[in-house]
Amino acid sequence: MSREQFNEKAVVLFQCPDRSGIVARISEYIHSNGANMVQADQYSTGDEDARFFMRVEFEFDRSVLGPERLHRDFSLIAAELDAEWQIHFRSSRLRMGIMVSKFDHCLNDLLYRWKSGELEVDIPFVISNHETLRADVEAAGIAFHCIPVEKGAKAAAEAAQLQLLHGQTDFLVLARYMQILSGDFIREYGRDIINIHHSFLPSFVGADPYRQAYLRGVKIIGATAHFVTEDLDEGPIIEQMVERVNHRYDVAGLKRLGRNLEQLALARAVHAQLEHRILRYRNKTVVFM
Amino acid sequence: MSREQFNEKAVVLFQCPDRSGIVARISEYIHSNGANMVQADQYSTGDEDARFFMRVEFEFDRSVLGPERLHRDFSLIAAELDAEWQIHFRSSRLRMGIMVSKFDHCLNDLLYRWKSGELEVDIPFVISNHETLRADVEAAGIAFHCIPVEKGAKAAAEAAQLQLLHGQTDFLVLARYMQILSGDFIREYGRDIINIHHSFLPSFVGADPYRQAYLRGVKIIGATAHFVTEDLDEGPIIEQMVERVNHRYDVAGLKRLGRNLEQLALARAVHAQLEHRILRYRNKTVVFM
Amino acid sequence: MSREQFNEKAVVLFQCPDRSGIVARISEYIHSNGANMVQADQYSTGDEDARFFMRVEFEFDRSVLGPERLHRDFSLIAAELDAEWQIHFRSSRLRMGIMVSKFDHCLNDLLYRWKSGELEVDIPFVISNHETLRADVEAAGIAFHCIPVEKGAKAAAEAAQLQLLHGQTDFLVLARYMQILSGDFIREYGRDIINIHHSFLPSFVGADPYRQAYLRGVKIIGATAHFVTEDLDEGPIIEQMVERVNHRYDVAGLKRLGRNLEQLALARAVHAQLEHRILRYRNKTVVFM
Amino acid sequence: MSREQFNEKAVVLFQCPDRSGIVARISEYIHSNGANMVQADQYSTGDEDARFFMRVEFEFDRSVLGPERLHRDFSLIAAELDAEWQIHFRSSRLRMGIMVSKFDHCLNDLLYRWKSGELEVDIPFVISNHETLRADVEAAGIAFHCIPVEKGAKAAAEAAQLQLLHGQTDFLVLARYMQILSGDFIREYGRDIINIHHSFLPSFVGADPYRQAYLRGVKIIGATAHFVTEDLDEGPIIEQMVERVNHRYDVAGLKRLGRNLEQLALARAVHAQLEHRILRYRNKTVVFM
Repeated sequence: MSREQFNEKAVVLFQCPDRSGIVARISEYIHSNGANMVQADQYSTGDEDARFFMRVEFEFDRSVLGPERLHRDFSLIAAELDAEWQIHFRSSRLRMGIMVSKFDHCLNDLLYRWKSGELEVDIPFVISNHETLRADVEAAGIAFHCIPVEKGAKAAAEAAQLQLLHGQTDFLVLARYMQILSGDFIREYGRDIINIHHSFLPSFVGADPYRQAYLRGVKIIGATAHFVTEDLDEGPIIEQMVERVNHRYDVAGLKRLGRNLEQLALARAVHAQLEHRILRYRNKTVVFM
Repeated sequence: MSREQFNEKAVVLFQCPDRSGIVARISEYIHSNGANMVQADQYSTGDEDARFFMRVEFEFDRSVLGPERLHRDFSLIAAELDAEWQIHFRSSRLRMGIMVSKFDHCLNDLLYRWKSGELEVDIPFVISNHETLRADVEAAGIAFHCIPVEKGAKAAAEAAQLQLLHGQTDFLVLARYMQILSGDFIREYGRDIINIHHSFLPSFVGADPYRQAYLRGVKIIGATAHFVTEDLDEGPIIEQMVERVNHRYDVAGLKRLGRNLEQLALARAVHAQLEHRILRYRNKTVVFM
Repeated sequence: MSREQFNEKAVVLFQCPDRSGIVARISEYIHSNGANMVQADQYSTGDEDARFFMRVEFEFDRSVLGPERLHRDFSLIAAELDAEWQIHFRSSRLRMGIMVSKFDHCLNDLLYRWKSGELEVDIPFVISNHETLRADVEAAGIAFHCIPVEKGAKAAAEAAQLQLLHGQTDFLVLARYMQILSGDFIREYGRDIINIHHSFLPSFVGADPYRQAYLRGVKIIGATAHFVTEDLDEGPIIEQMVERVNHRYDVAGLKRLGRNLEQLALARAVHAQLEHRILRYRNKTVVFM
Repeated sequence: MSREQFNEKAVVLFQCPDRSGIVARISEYIHSNGANMVQADQYSTGDEDARFFMRVEFEFDRSVLGPERLHRDFSLIAAELDAEWQIHFRSSRLRMGIMVSKFDHCLNDLLYRWKSGELEVDIPFVISNHETLRADVEAAGIAFHCIPVEKGAKAAAEAAQLQLLHGQTDFLVLARYMQILSGDFIREYGRDIINIHHSFLPSFVGADPYRQAYLRGVKIIGATAHFVTEDLDEGPIIEQMVERVNHRYDVAGLKRLGRNLEQLALARAVHAQLEHRILRYRNKTVVFM
């Protein structure tokens, strides 16, 4: 089959107990169905309970390998292998929700990358607990929903947020959203939530990490993009960026430098998410870059 | 077959024109012969004349899959695929020749990593055009051969070097060897030669790169490990390391800082070589890290 | 004198042949006139013809130390020391001209930093040889002048550019301006021109450096902010940023990653320029960070 | 006075409440006594209780400015300024004690830099709680003292260590010494103790930081050189080095990579210490690089 006949591309992610023949099983399936493997990555933890991770990108003819057939076949393979698995088709573009408070540097960076075509994703809306960034968002042609979080009324706010997010987003990015999401919210949303934390985790969890870094006198600062879990600032790390500083940096200087690190770490994490490069296991990530 | 029965490990490297089914073909071969794929990496250049690269690490039972059979079978597969290929067995430890002049920092670093067990390689001898480092080398229990390179007598020196190298080394490392090897030497040796160049190539080819860097006023310096070809400082780059500097660094300061970069870049390149992670194509490398 | 009475701040830059007593001479002048030295940096090249560089930031009472008196006194000191010198007052905000072609990432980044108050500078206008970015610039409330550069009519275009720049800008930033400025333009403008080059200079001068980097197979790419001189891509380097890459980056991938490096290197150079941290000597810079 | 008459060099370190005229006061003293300021750095914290830090390197004629006179004069200046201060003469070479356990990579690196002349320091001896590294140390021509630390007999071991250290060392380096020094030891020794911690502090304090890093799934690891205080792993940070990692690094891989970071961070900290570039304030350092 010549390449010209491939009209669809998919990424399939597998994780399962390690054993012989997994790569052969999957690559043989792909090849014998006339599809072409574009990229395959795999990794096995070396420890006692060896776990195997695989990401396969392949191109195929939709008239031969339809989505239902792929779902059915991979479900069977996954059952054999005792695997968790996902499949993503290039033709179904992801929808990324964004939540933000008042700081605009991460939002601005994401919107710039989106407008320039670097981030191939739909952004149905931006939710904020403040009106501050409405103009920026609407200027980009994106809907802006302000849902204030009043003291003692977080549950109501989260309910309103969830109503927007459900069914309209495939994952959520907290681009410096300064409220803590409740465990209920996280469970109920049920999809990936990526947060940017303004420190080199696990250093300086919690509030005001740049001030903490200043007081501790570190010589390098960082930013961390991670998945949100119920344990604040403890979720699986996706990407980290660092930069050297010295005593001349006061808290404001650290913040200024840190903004660039936050932008870059978050952008890299979103890229990895859009290309389905991230697998989660225990409290860690395997990122096939 | 349980893992306990695997008594050998091998790495096979393939490169060939890209087409469908290569991964399936190779992984199916490995699996159907009772071997276990430990790690597989592949890459395809996206350009017109798409070229495919693959590195597979697999473990197996020598009594089932002997070296001759593997050679024969992979030769057949390679013929099908129009591929260049190599196989390396873990049980046959590589032999690394080292050539050096008077600077000892790269040599010292390699010997330290070798003594500590970090570099799993045999070092049959060190060749130098000076006596300077004899004591260091012999203290490590390694033979030291001084082959001076007299003006106008390079051919004779190279002949003596080749006599030592042939049959006793699988590849050669120039750990700050300050003579230019002739094209004849390179061709006749015929195996990989890794050099450490003390600049961020292609900046500052040729002599005294730290002085060149000082005069140009760069804000970052580097070191480059690369394969030696007949075009001086133009061979395929394996690894590069960089570090920030400022106006306060004079030539001596750049050299001092650069020594660390040279050590690290060379050590990383040697690691990649020992683990058969490097494929050469055109004048570039694919390094599966 | 208490700090409350200081109503002005200045930076004075000196460079002269090195000799004893320069720091004492300058700091004594500042102190004996009731001013307060906020920050002083100095550096002396160690070579034969030792050259001394100094940057002093000081605060003072304008009613005691007026600009004319400072100019007169520092002129006398400079004559004593055979020094080149400049003084910059905080109260006179710099005016930065920007020239750009079609790529918007550096422009967008500078405008964002300017709008957020990070860059304390006036931007009287942006000049482009294309209409492409008019909307972005005008949306930021900045005048946009399109001066096309027709083949064979560069002199006329440069004359039009100079007419705008003269008297309205203190320095000029080429934020991916894809035309080569003539020697006449550079001489006639007479003030600092900062360019961002999309490679780790001196590697890959000239056109399409990301393609050059791809073909050469480097393992680290970079961007360089430098002053423009008549020797293309050869002017004094102000700042460089680098990032690790591997064989998986094609030219488009290198460009995408490189955009971030270009933004950061240029932003850092502009910061250094605005704070008068850069001294030029021979073809190099001393940047007191 | 011509430079040829300068036969001594000194570094003086000051820290005191910030106020006008400090730089002028000190530079005027140096100049008016016929000395030449080679390098001056200063820094003032911007906060409420502004504190001023200064490092001055100057050269002079010992027959004019003897050590006693310098001590007396600087004591007077320090009293005026309410300053803490130190002076160090180039002619009195520092003596560095080293303590180590079984890991040899930091020790080996320090000894290599010392033998090559990069570290201008005397090393009177190495103390270890194990015999493991005796041969390496003695081969370098340095005395080796093994002082085992038996369970319940740490006080006796520390007394023996202190007897060696007192009067023979100006500062102490813990080059992977795996015992916790008691508060009594630290107070009684009374001089600077530099430790290398094998993590990017404040992440992963305590035991087995590479395992902690592995379990947390960080994407960058680091090493930290810091002064030892009674609060374990909480002392002032001098230098930090970091390197990017990914999921493929197991604990052994992190350790292997980390060894280089430890060596580099410790070497940089020792350099800064030898050149008297470090001032301590609160729990932080000002390092004038």
